[in-house]
Amino acid sequence: MALYVQKYGGTSVGTIERIEAVADKLKTFHEQGHQLVVAVSAMSGETNRLISLAKGISDSPSPREMDVLVSTGEQVTIALLAMALDKRGIHARSFTGWQVGIKTDNAFMKARIEDIETSKMREVLDAGGICIVAGFQGIDGDNNITTLGRGGSDTTGVALAAALKADECQIYTDVDGVYTTDPRVVPAARRMDKVTFEEMLEMASLGSKVLQIRSVEFAGKYKVPLRVLSSFKEGNGTLITTEETSSVENPVISGIAFNRDEAKVTVKGVPDVPGVASRILVPVSAANIEVDMIIQNVSDDGSTDFTFTVHRNDYKKALKILSELATELNAKSVSGTDDICKVSMVGVGMRSHAGVASKMFETLANESVNILAITTSEIKISVVIEEKYLELAVRALHTAFGLDAEVTEEQ
Amino acid sequence: MALYVQKYGGTSVGTIERIEAVADKLKTFHEQGHQLVVAVSAMSGETNRLISLAKGISDSPSPREMDVLVSTGEQVTIALLAMALDKRGIHARSFTGWQVGIKTDNAFMKARIEDIETSKMREVLDAGGICIVAGFQGIDGDNNITTLGRGGSDTTGVALAAALKADECQIYTDVDGVYTTDPRVVPAARRMDKVTFEEMLEMASLGSKVLQIRSVEFAGKYKVPLRVLSSFKEGNGTLITTEETSSVENPVISGIAFNRDEAKVTVKGVPDVPGVASRILVPVSAANIEVDMIIQNVSDDGSTDFTFTVHRNDYKKALKILSELATELNAKSVSGTDDICKVSMVGVGMRSHAGVASKMFETLANESVNILAITTSEIKISVVIEEKYLELAVRALHTAFGLDAEVTEEQ
Repeated sequence: MALYVQKYGGTSVGTIERIEAVADKLKTFHEQGHQLVVAVSAMSGETNRLISLAKGISDSPSPREMDVLVSTGEQVTIALLAMALDKRGIHARSFTGWQVGIKTDNAFMKARIEDIETSKMREVLDAGGICIVAGFQGIDGDNNITTLGRGGSDTTGVALAAALKADECQIYTDVDGVYTTDPRVVPAARRMDKVTFEEMLEMASLGSKVLQIRSVEFAGKYKVPLRVLSSFKEGNGTLITTEETSSVENPVISGIAFNRDEAKVTVKGVPDVPGVASRILVPVSAANIEVDMIIQNVSDDGSTDFTFTVHRNDYKKALKILSELATELNAKSVSGTDDICKVSMVGVGMRSHAGVASKMFETLANESVNILAITTSEIKISVVIEEKYLELAVRALHTAFGLDAEVTEEQ
Repeated sequence: MALYVQKYGGTSVGTIERIEAVADKLKTFHEQGHQLVVAVSAMSGETNRLISLAKGISDSPSPREMDVLVSTGEQVTIALLAMALDKRGIHARSFTGWQVGIKTDNAFMKARIEDIETSKMREVLDAGGICIVAGFQGIDGDNNITTLGRGGSDTTGVALAAALKADECQIYTDVDGVYTTDPRVVPAARRMDKVTFEEMLEMASLGSKVLQIRSVEFAGKYKVPLRVLSSFKEGNGTLITTEETSSVENPVISGIAFNRDEAKVTVKGVPDVPGVASRILVPVSAANIEVDMIIQNVSDDGSTDFTFTVHRNDYKKALKILSELATELNAKSVSGTDDICKVSMVGVGMRSHAGVASKMFETLANESVNILAITTSEIKISVVIEEKYLELAVRALHTAFGLDAEVTEEQ
C-alpha cells in the first residue's frame, strides 16, 4: 500500500466522459489499497474562456481579481470529480486551495507555494477517502486567492507529494512518458524508463513540454519521485528520480531536445573591450526580448564577434535595435537569420565521457550539416544549425548515440 | 452620504457589457459620496450550465460538491465587476462568501446565514473602496462551501445590509418596482412607491416573482429598508418598509396577485369525523405534491366536502391518489379540474376595513365570474375562479379598488 499524489491535466478532465474515466482509474487504485491525493487542472478550454471574459473588460485586469476569476476553473473540476467518485461509492472530498491550506506568497498570477497543511487531507485519507485538490491555486497570508501561473497544477501535485511525504507524484498527461526525442521527428524515439531531474530540466527548458520546469525543480529539491504517465494508455511512464543509473546499462546521452522558432543576431567586429557584451544586451532585454544562447569568441585584431539567439517572433525587433546601435558600438556589421534551430544532446553520463562533443560534430559533418554556433553545459551540448537540417540532424544523432528503439521491441 | 447595499441579479450582470453598465452606475453612486457594498449573482445562464455539468455525472450529485461547483458562478462575477471598477479608477475588492465571512449552517444547497463578519468590508469602505460580494454563498463551521439555494443572492444582500446596518438594501432587477398587479394583464397597473413587508410577502408567495420570499422575511425581521429598482431604467423603484402609510393617502388594497397553473381536487361526501383531513392530505404530501389552498365546509348530514389546490403539473398524480383512496375514505366521489386560477387581493388596510370581501365578490358577480372557492387571511382574500376569467377578474378588481394609474400620470 502506497500513498500516491496524482495530477490530471486539462485534457485528462476535459469532458464529463473523461472525468468519469479518471474516476474509474482512481477506483482501481483505491481498490488496490493505495491512498490517493489527486490534484486537477481546469477542464481544457475553461481557463482560456475565463481569461477572455477578463480581456473583454480590460487589457490589464487587476492581478488579484484575475486569480479570483481563473481559480474557479479548477474548483469546477474538483467538484465534478468528487461527484463521479461519490457515484462509484467511494468517499471523496474536494478541497480548494484555501480549504486544504496551500499557503503562497502574495505574487498574484505567479505565486509560489510556501507551506501546505496536511491535517485535513490526512483525516480524509485515514477515513479511507480520496482527496481531490484544486491545482494551480492557494491563498496568501491575507486570505487572498492566488494562482501559481499557467501549468502550475504540476507544481501543486509535487508540493502536495512533498508535504505528505508521498511515495510518488504521478503526473497524468496526454503523452505516455518522456522520450529520447520527439517521436514525430524520430519514429524510432524510445520512451525512457528513468531520467534524472537534471536531465529532465535540460530537456524541459529545451522544448520537451511534458512537464513544467518549476515542478521538476521543486521535485528535485524535495526529492519527490516524479512519474509521467498517460491518462489514456496503460504503461509505467517515465520515472524522474535523483538516482543516476549506472553507465553500464545506460547510454552516455539520455535524450535529444530541439527548439524550432529560433533566430540569431550577430554583431561583427566590435572592439573587444570590457562592457561590450552588456552594451549589446542591455537594450535588447530592456525591449523585453528574451535572449537564449550567447556566444562570444576572442579574436586577434582587438575586435570580436558577438552572437545571440532569440525567439523568432522577436527577431525583427532585435535586429532593428542592434542595427541602430551599430555605429555607437563601433561594430563592423550587424546581421542575422531567422531560419535556424537549436539541437541539444542531454545526459548526465556526459560528465564522465570525453568525446561526446567530437562524436556529435562528426555525425553532423557526415551528414553535411553546418554548425552555426555551439554552447555547452555540464550535461548538455547545444548547436545551432539551419532549420532545414533539423530532422536529419536529430535522426542521425539519435542513431549514432544508440538511442533508437530496438526493432523487436514493442512500441 | 449613505451606506447602501446593492444587489444585482443574473440578467443585470449577464454579459460583459452589462457588467460595465453596472460599474458605470456604481461609479455614479460612489462619486455622490455613498459607501457601497454590492452583492452579485452569477451571470445569467451560468448556474444552469454548472448544474447541467453535474447532472451529466449524477442524477443526485453530492450536495456538498454541488455547492463547491455552483458557487464558482458568483465568484466569476465578483472578479469581473471588480476589474470593471478598477478600470474606472475606483478601488474595489471582491469577496467570496468565505472571504467576507458569511457563516451559515451546514444545510448544503439551502443553507441559512447565521452570522456575517463586517471588519474586512469596513476596511475597504473606510479606504474609500467598494466591496463586491459573491451572493448566494457562505461557509459552514467546518469551512465547507455552502449555498443559500437559488435566488439566495437577494438574501445575501439583505443579510449584508442588516450586518452593516446599511441605510438601505437596494435590489436591482429587470423590473422597475413592485406593481399593483402584473402590467401585462392590466396595462393600467401602477408601480407602488411603498409597500409593507407583510404585503410584499403575500404578493411574493402569490406569484409576484420580483423578490425571493426569504429575503423579504429576513428584511422584515431585521427591519432593513428594502428597495426594488431596475438595472436598466432610471427611477425610485418600490420601497418595502415596516411603516404602514396612513389610510388617508393609501387605498385599502395595495395590490392584486394571481397564480395561473392551479388545479383543484374535490373529495365529496366524506364522513365529517376527526382525522379525515389528514387521511386525505398525508398520502398527497407523501407523493411530494405541494398543497396550496385547503377548503373544508361543514355539512348537515354528517358528511363534508374537502377541496384543495395543487400546481397544475401535479394535478393528475393527485387525482389518481385520491381516486384510489375514495373507497377507503368512504367518499361519495372524487373530482377535479385543472383550468382554474387564483386571484388574491392584498392590503394591510384590509384589517380595519369591513366590506372588502363583499365588494370583491360583488365586482366579480357583476362580471358574471363564478367563484369556485374562497380563503382569507388577515391581509389577503383569495378566490379560485375559472382560468378563462383571469384577465377580466383582475382588471375589474383593479379598477373597482381604485388601483388604476391616473391617465395623466406618465408611466
